Amino acid sequence: MSATTANVFTSAVFPVEEMSVPGGTETILRGGRNLFPQLPAAFAGVRRIGVIGWGPQGRAQACNLRDSLAGTDITVAVGLRPGSSSLADARREGFREQDGTLGDWLTVAAESDLLILLIADAALAAQHEEIFAVLKPGATIGLSHGFLLGHLRATGGAFPEGHGVIAVCPKGMGDSVRRLYLQGAEINGAGINSSFAVHADPDGHGVDRALAWSVALGSPYTFRTTLESEYRSDIVGERAILLGAVHGIVESLFRHFRLAGDDAVLAYERSCENVTGPIARTISRDGLPAVRELLDAAGREAFDRSYSATYRPARDLVAEIYDEVADGTEIRSVILAEQRLTSRPMTEIGGSAMWAAADEVHARRGGRTLATDPLTAGVFVATMMAQVDELAERGHPWSEIVNESIIEAVDSLLPYMHARNVAFMVDNCSRTARLGTRRWGPRFQAAYEQIALPASGRPADTALTAAFAASPVHEALAAAAKLRPSVDISVA
Amino acid sequence: MSATTANVFTSAVFPVEEMSVPGGTETILRGGRNLFPQLPAAFAGVRRIGVIGWGPQGRAQACNLRDSLAGTDITVAVGLRPGSSSLADARREGFREQDGTLGDWLTVAAESDLLILLIADAALAAQHEEIFAVLKPGATIGLSHGFLLGHLRATGGAFPEGHGVIAVCPKGMGDSVRRLYLQGAEINGAGINSSFAVHADPDGHGVDRALAWSVALGSPYTFRTTLESEYRSDIVGERAILLGAVHGIVESLFRHFRLAGDDAVLAYERSCENVTGPIARTISRDGLPAVRELLDAAGREAFDRSYSATYRPARDLVAEIYDEVADGTEIRSVILAEQRLTSRPMTEIGGSAMWAAADEVHARRGGRTLATDPLTAGVFVATMMAQVDELAERGHPWSEIVNESIIEAVDSLLPYMHARNVAFMVDNCSRTARLGTRRWGPRFQAAYEQIALPASGRPADTALTAAFAASPVHEALAAAAKLRPSVDISVA
Repeated sequence: MSATTANVFTSAVFPVEEMSVPGGTETILRGGRNLFPQLPAAFAGVRRIGVIGWGPQGRAQACNLRDSLAGTDITVAVGLRPGSSSLADARREGFREQDGTLGDWLTVAAESDLLILLIADAALAAQHEEIFAVLKPGATIGLSHGFLLGHLRATGGAFPEGHGVIAVCPKGMGDSVRRLYLQGAEINGAGINSSFAVHADPDGHGVDRALAWSVALGSPYTFRTTLESEYRSDIVGERAILLGAVHGIVESLFRHFRLAGDDAVLAYERSCENVTGPIARTISRDGLPAVRELLDAAGREAFDRSYSATYRPARDLVAEIYDEVADGTEIRSVILAEQRLTSRPMTEIGGSAMWAAADEVHARRGGRTLATDPLTAGVFVATMMAQVDELAERGHPWSEIVNESIIEAVDSLLPYMHARNVAFMVDNCSRTARLGTRRWGPRFQAAYEQIALPASGRPADTALTAAFAASPVHEALAAAAKLRPSVDISVA
Repeated sequence: MSATTANVFTSAVFPVEEMSVPGGTETILRGGRNLFPQLPAAFAGVRRIGVIGWGPQGRAQACNLRDSLAGTDITVAVGLRPGSSSLADARREGFREQDGTLGDWLTVAAESDLLILLIADAALAAQHEEIFAVLKPGATIGLSHGFLLGHLRATGGAFPEGHGVIAVCPKGMGDSVRRLYLQGAEINGAGINSSFAVHADPDGHGVDRALAWSVALGSPYTFRTTLESEYRSDIVGERAILLGAVHGIVESLFRHFRLAGDDAVLAYERSCENVTGPIARTISRDGLPAVRELLDAAGREAFDRSYSATYRPARDLVAEIYDEVADGTEIRSVILAEQRLTSRPMTEIGGSAMWAAADEVHARRGGRTLATDPLTAGVFVATMMAQVDELAERGHPWSEIVNESIIEAVDSLLPYMHARNVAFMVDNCSRTARLGTRRWGPRFQAAYEQIALPASGRPADTALTAAFAASPVHEALAAAAKLRPSVDISVA
């Protein structure tokens, strides 16, 4: 399947649409609770869905699926490993051993028609063969990102013959998948956009099952990708603008402002608070160029200089990350890091000086409107554009690019970072993401400190700023924004 | 060959010695110009030595070999690729097309009895098959580190049958190999200690040929290792205490002192200047504990706190680097990075604010004695000990540990960094080292900023400081120091 046809699909059950994107269209399915009556038909023979794992994604997806399928004859069961510390929380959320909706992972795996694997990547790498061995004949394997495909390729393994393999990949953390679903209950649903992929489809129902799964999660819209395209963009994204680069941006800018004379509170406001607050909000509501347009003339000049100084070093790093992910090197590193965790616990990242200022800044929020800092805005937007352009050059579909580079950042992750802090946020993501952020965050920090910030006083590069103004991503983001639910996530 | 027997050897030509190290002895050969008359016998049938490549190592080794073999019937020829920009410099150093000591690389390769491959790692990865195809029957392949073995393992390749494969690996950069050789000409030689390895030995003369090569380079002493042990310790070392960690140390400490109120000059003196000046000199002359002993009571307490806060995060990183090198992941990353260099030039690392202070600090040197900063000393020594302990745990011989972790740092690299600066230094090493420093330097910086420095005010961990005081490395370093030449490198 080529990059241009990968995103075309039809459905026997749901009314798909064509979304205009630069250079053509992409097929999408608009979500909504009005589609829930079609779920049993679309799940095509699936009467028991097993969710293995109770991390943030497992918890959110099991609860949303169960709620969306209430009143149908499809049951959702959660499978946990023996001695799992998640048992109590799963019971609190209403899953019960007595009615067969909570049980041992291999028992649940053996009984499911659709088995959704949401255990940690390293566990999946270590234990997928054990799970594959007990699958019900004809059962469909469900994934929420392509890590396992990368691992199988790196180790010469394969998915078992005769089973469908589909993926539905929410473009946001598990907690936001659940939280938005609940917050959107009264407005025909809300949630996190998802991509889907059909990797193996022996009975021809893969697309409809994937769409049903995505609709039941509450996805505002669902687009098609491939497992390979998904895992590349997903792993690159979390190492770059979603987590790793954000951490590097705020650590480097905080020190930059402190050394320029700001006290800790002001430096925090100009760096971390600026990114998670006004910059994220502006992009979410009005797109990337609006960040610059809201500045006065001097601010725009400062933005242009900062953007020009940052774009190339950020792009170099995103290209490096992409190469390592595509080559399998990054996944091997994650597996090595997981093995070390038995003797060397994951390091803390919230200990640096800047976090001491967070509480005071949060307390000052009240009704104040924080002005956008042009230097910070230029660094952030240039890094975001570096990821957009690198994914576009590598042939990813526009829906994947804007969701993985922009929407997931400004509508899911940054609001959480704003409510808590960046360090807290990083450590509430998957272990693969946490490890990747530790690997790449410091690289971004060093690139800003050593290359971008020292050059940020030089005249702007008009070729770069013109390319930003004319980028097709603005059109793609606007098209996706039309499908945005009418509720902003609230992180109380 | 086990770790305990790997370092035992005998020679039919040279008088080897047993050096006491913790837990036993290691066989070594003490160098000296008095051994030069034995070189033709030890080279055992080698009448033509080819050196392929004219980077810092190629240049230094070709010149030293040629000078040491002057008056014998062994010739040294330099082989360069067509259009090489190094041609003029090779001619300036006395190599000539007319007398057959300078020529096309494949011609030189085809005519050599010992062919020493000193082209860049990536070139070696890409072109070793072309070279192997033209080798003279029975010719010995010479390497100066084990990168090619790592690459062959990662790609399923092999050294050609019927050829000896030996390595002599100077524990210092090429320029110091040449500079010390010249500076030691009047005192029976000086130079950089080397390890050697005999990987394939079809005619049984591998050990003597390797020893002859090492003696001719001017190595004060030569110890035995394996290609695998060498490349692991070498690549880990340059990513950690030799280059990467030093860069991370000075970048993080400079900012730390600036934020604590020092002006740029004082912050530079307390960080970069301190490491490359008094700390390196003290370790070189009197060993690691002397750094602490020279401090007053308050300084010792500050050192202990800094050491305690730094050791574990530094050790975690060295362990991570070791895993990546042993797994082949690091070498794959280097090859990917080399491929990107065609479209994305290597980034600058000398642009950060601290380097602006270097000139003024250098100008102030005069007769002043700079006091050791206890915080900086604790961070540096703890990181050095982290590498020592990790290499010891992974079974490396003591000579390799002390040369790769301490002697190469304080007697070769840090004096260069002192004369120039750290950023300049990094970029005059091999591309593999330059790329590795860019990958790992920021990781060390982040570990110091986020973990070590915030904890450096807490009470010392007496278990860690006692382990430092009692470490067997001090005995191993003292044994190696007895073989140190009586000349310090002078970097004019």
